[in-house]
Amino acid sequence: MSRSCLAVILAAGESTRMKSSMSKVLHPVAGLPMIAHVMKTIASSGISDVALVVGRDMDKVARAGSVGGVNVTPFLQAERLGTGHAVLAAREAIARGYDDILVAYGDVPLITAEPLMAARAALAQGHDVAVIGFHTANPTGYGRLLVKDGELVAIREERDANEAERAVTWCNSGLMAINGRKALDLLTRIGNANAKGEYYLTDIVEIARALGGRTVAVDAPEEQLTGCNNRAELAVLERLWQERRRHELMVSGVSMISPETVFLSHDTEIGQDALIEPNVVFGPGVTVEGGAIIHAFSHLEGAHVAAGATVGPFARLRPGANLATGSKVGNFCEVKKAEIGEGAKVNHLTYIGDAFIGAHANIGAGTITCNYDGVNKHVTRIGEGAFIGSNSALVAPVSVGDGAIIASGSVITEDVPSDALALGRARQEIKPERAKAIRARNQAIKASRSAKS
Amino acid sequence: MSRSCLAVILAAGESTRMKSSMSKVLHPVAGLPMIAHVMKTIASSGISDVALVVGRDMDKVARAGSVGGVNVTPFLQAERLGTGHAVLAAREAIARGYDDILVAYGDVPLITAEPLMAARAALAQGHDVAVIGFHTANPTGYGRLLVKDGELVAIREERDANEAERAVTWCNSGLMAINGRKALDLLTRIGNANAKGEYYLTDIVEIARALGGRTVAVDAPEEQLTGCNNRAELAVLERLWQERRRHELMVSGVSMISPETVFLSHDTEIGQDALIEPNVVFGPGVTVEGGAIIHAFSHLEGAHVAAGATVGPFARLRPGANLATGSKVGNFCEVKKAEIGEGAKVNHLTYIGDAFIGAHANIGAGTITCNYDGVNKHVTRIGEGAFIGSNSALVAPVSVGDGAIIASGSVITEDVPSDALALGRARQEIKPERAKAIRARNQAIKASRSAKS
Amino acid sequence: MSRSCLAVILAAGESTRMKSSMSKVLHPVAGLPMIAHVMKTIASSGISDVALVVGRDMDKVARAGSVGGVNVTPFLQAERLGTGHAVLAAREAIARGYDDILVAYGDVPLITAEPLMAARAALAQGHDVAVIGFHTANPTGYGRLLVKDGELVAIREERDANEAERAVTWCNSGLMAINGRKALDLLTRIGNANAKGEYYLTDIVEIARALGGRTVAVDAPEEQLTGCNNRAELAVLERLWQERRRHELMVSGVSMISPETVFLSHDTEIGQDALIEPNVVFGPGVTVEGGAIIHAFSHLEGAHVAAGATVGPFARLRPGANLATGSKVGNFCEVKKAEIGEGAKVNHLTYIGDAFIGAHANIGAGTITCNYDGVNKHVTRIGEGAFIGSNSALVAPVSVGDGAIIASGSVITEDVPSDALALGRARQEIKPERAKAIRARNQAIKASRSAKS
Repeated sequence: MSRSCLAVILAAGESTRMKSSMSKVLHPVAGLPMIAHVMKTIASSGISDVALVVGRDMDKVARAGSVGGVNVTPFLQAERLGTGHAVLAAREAIARGYDDILVAYGDVPLITAEPLMAARAALAQGHDVAVIGFHTANPTGYGRLLVKDGELVAIREERDANEAERAVTWCNSGLMAINGRKALDLLTRIGNANAKGEYYLTDIVEIARALGGRTVAVDAPEEQLTGCNNRAELAVLERLWQERRRHELMVSGVSMISPETVFLSHDTEIGQDALIEPNVVFGPGVTVEGGAIIHAFSHLEGAHVAAGATVGPFARLRPGANLATGSKVGNFCEVKKAEIGEGAKVNHLTYIGDAFIGAHANIGAGTITCNYDGVNKHVTRIGEGAFIGSNSALVAPVSVGDGAIIASGSVITEDVPSDALALGRARQEIKPERAKAIRARNQAIKASRSAKS
Repeated sequence: MSRSCLAVILAAGESTRMKSSMSKVLHPVAGLPMIAHVMKTIASSGISDVALVVGRDMDKVARAGSVGGVNVTPFLQAERLGTGHAVLAAREAIARGYDDILVAYGDVPLITAEPLMAARAALAQGHDVAVIGFHTANPTGYGRLLVKDGELVAIREERDANEAERAVTWCNSGLMAINGRKALDLLTRIGNANAKGEYYLTDIVEIARALGGRTVAVDAPEEQLTGCNNRAELAVLERLWQERRRHELMVSGVSMISPETVFLSHDTEIGQDALIEPNVVFGPGVTVEGGAIIHAFSHLEGAHVAAGATVGPFARLRPGANLATGSKVGNFCEVKKAEIGEGAKVNHLTYIGDAFIGAHANIGAGTITCNYDGVNKHVTRIGEGAFIGSNSALVAPVSVGDGAIIASGSVITEDVPSDALALGRARQEIKPERAKAIRARNQAIKASRSAKS
Repeated sequence: MSRSCLAVILAAGESTRMKSSMSKVLHPVAGLPMIAHVMKTIASSGISDVALVVGRDMDKVARAGSVGGVNVTPFLQAERLGTGHAVLAAREAIARGYDDILVAYGDVPLITAEPLMAARAALAQGHDVAVIGFHTANPTGYGRLLVKDGELVAIREERDANEAERAVTWCNSGLMAINGRKALDLLTRIGNANAKGEYYLTDIVEIARALGGRTVAVDAPEEQLTGCNNRAELAVLERLWQERRRHELMVSGVSMISPETVFLSHDTEIGQDALIEPNVVFGPGVTVEGGAIIHAFSHLEGAHVAAGATVGPFARLRPGANLATGSKVGNFCEVKKAEIGEGAKVNHLTYIGDAFIGAHANIGAGTITCNYDGVNKHVTRIGEGAFIGSNSALVAPVSVGDGAIIASGSVITEDVPSDALALGRARQEIKPERAKAIRARNQAIKASRSAKS
């Protein structure tokens, strides 16, 4: 589209019903603030200039909205006198002179580029205003879009609608595109002579028509226009987003046994023929290659899982976990900032942090890399084909050479050469019949406790 | 309300379809027996006298129902001859002389105080019977409430209804309030001259009207009147309860990313701006303060989590876990009967039981408090700012002083003074090239096993 | 039924929309390939001869379909020219001469025996074709079943239907039974003179009627006829299967607090009065006896849980885990190929593999059976009433006798006699005031790191 465009994003709502110490549009959906979702869509629709109208947390909101390469200018709406007034908070930006002005909302984050582009296309065809509408089974409370001969003739608020108009199920979303050459004139003509004394942006339709302009409505799925006024509604937005993204991944060839129990992040990427079992949570920054298996009850964040690798059940991958082809991280294992080499196994009850695990190494159950001295983090290196016996502690910084073996239950504090055996444990002693005496003593302690209480 | 009231709770159903060794009303919803839910609502509606009509497990049911400060008298319904007969099992209590008699059901646990109070208010306005009804999209099988000029003129059973009556979608729940001064007279007039030979409580409406009394219906949401005849229906009750409570918490300012995966207990309390991630299970007795974060896959029971504390993912808090401000219990950690001091960290693969952890102490991965000697439980005390190296075992009773350091992999059996370093581990030995011999031996064992099989 | 029957199962669809390297009918529902579900139903409806029409992965599909004792002959459909053509790929088998030919589909796995038997019963009553239909709220896209005087007079494709016919909500599933004595004749009369040039099996209805035969439709629930063309639809099949099986278990007396979070396998068996908490995943081969408790966040596979045993939360039972009455496997514990004796406790952060745990033994937190030497698996035996102190490693092969005690933090490499105490740990040393020096050194390291970066 060669037409220039300014998006005016309204994000100044007071949102007291969120009961939050944070501005509503900063609340996340899929781990990303709502305002950032809107900005990413704006960017993907080909718009780069944004006027962001903010009421509180101005710096935070502007920062959260600066994604996707858009050029954001924040404007403060000090008084809240209606949507028409809110758009005019960006008067200075609108006055720069754009072909199109697009109005969207920071708390309507599921909108996609398609209806935005459809609204702008309507302007290119000579309309002065193109309102985005949605069909709904339950229109109660929404303004109805009254259409005649393909033109939008009015937006009728419910309280003003007659019976026939109330039966209309095509409703106003509030999003619209406005002829940028006329926008300031139209917007400043909006009055506040109504019950609440507010400036309603929707009045722009009849103003444009009174001046001889053409107005039209374009359609978008109801789901994309869902907004959010409290945290229960925020959870609905999250569900709708999750359903959309899960469906995309499944039709692209990802198997999910129970998609409704898989929680994706805004940037989760999963390749074809990967299997995601029930109850998997993806934090930000995860890529899973095709053919990998993520078993049930796994939690991944900032991690990469290569083809043919297996995670879980009950595994946690933290930022910097990088699993090579055919490697395995199993139950009750935590991996942080660590390379797990090709075919290496970290199968049971293990903590691997700040480490390099060589290809085909086997890390026994209960192994701990002791990476933290209370102040600093240190690195553990384990060579290819090394075997770490169960319940060992590797006190970093430390290296275990290729093919080395660590005896079970060892504490390793010094480097182990390749192919060496390292032990760090006491010799076993046996005290025959001693268990009987211990049991007797413990029973006596119990008896003495009971006597006292 | 200054009128006296007796609630008659019917809990004598045989409930063979539950296929249970336990009385139906003892089955829990949100961790609390159904009968206790009803009693709590009775109490919250301002009623303190309850006649509980029970068929089996009388003592257990009466005990489970004695909550919320109500004064419960159990009555045995030996024979089961219909609801009218069941209410009369409490004849003795009814005969005490109350202004109002309120009939409710032990297996209809989601009822709230509001419709109960509305029914009683109708008595105060001069009605003899006030039936609680519900509107439903699918009335099949229910008795229809026939209303004329604001009065309830009949409850029409489906089999007796004409087409117009069948189209009525306002249905009888069975709950009702009855003028206490006339109740015994009305109840004893109910006959059993019907196909099944049973005494139907609903007949009381036409009896009251025949005697010149006024009858009325009051409304309640269908969800509140959902009953339970098998365990699939019990799961529906649980779902409805959970949805209601999750919604309450969200609109009060608690964030839930995926509310349908958060399981609350009847007494779970969560403060504003707390974040509950997906897949969290709350057992009884949990309080979470505002601003705390409960990560995914956490399980809490009998625990307190202070503001700014963080739990999980994959954490289990058991009864007596008490997390102070800014403390952290992380993945694969279990905490039982323990104080976790301000800012203290228990981050990985750790068991803390019967312990006091000082402020800002750091408990390394794989630490175990050995609190059990097979007979008795003993206490571990860890001082402020202490550092417990990974994979350590602390054999209780034992104390680690403020600022002390325990070397990784140590077994600590004696008290450690403040600022001391304690070690309890063997020195590391290295056997060069020995790994090769071990691998050769293991391969030989394998070969010999194969040869034998 | 004394009539002979051949089931022709069509499993040759190209299924490109699955975006899979595997044939569609091999994709699992409840852990079992779709084709195996169909075969099990065929077998349970009393049919033993099956002609399996396959397009790709012929051996794998035939192998996956050889379940339930059916006698499967695979046929290759080399070209894909429509369902009529596909059935004729099994011409050789049909020509053997059966009373009934039953046509079903490898990607319609939820069908039960009942409608199949109803369709065959219709043949026994003299019909030549009995089509299985389903009622649906949204018939768009399906062929409508046009019925007159109880006979199926036509299957009308949507594009050919008039308004009245489009309003019909009884639709063609494609499954049908055909008179086996006439089947070859009828099938070979199907032509391909249509837009796509394909042979449509549904044409058989009008062909049979033109020849003077009687045709009829029988009903099945829509859910049973749900098919699958992509992985989102596969997830729908999984959900429908899970809902059906959960409901069966609940009405049989199994308690599930949140059934929608319990994932069953095709062969999961659970006894009456067992309790399954939220978020439990059953892999194949699990039996849970009545009265057992499976706590939240548990993962079971190939395991047996006896009456009164308790699993989880956060427990993983792997193949060969066998829990005796009253035993307990608790949080962050993994059990593989191991007998857990009556009343034995494996409560915290433990790995038990290739082991026998005696009755009433107590396995302390953090215990690891070191069963793997890098090449072979070895067995650990723990006697009745033994007490394994926390954080111990048992290096297999090894035995601990009845009543023996292992001190916390020990590495046990040699057998321990009954009632003996075994220790394998270093004596504790204390270095007074040393912690201060360590902290100072660590801070110096930090400072030096900062200086460098």
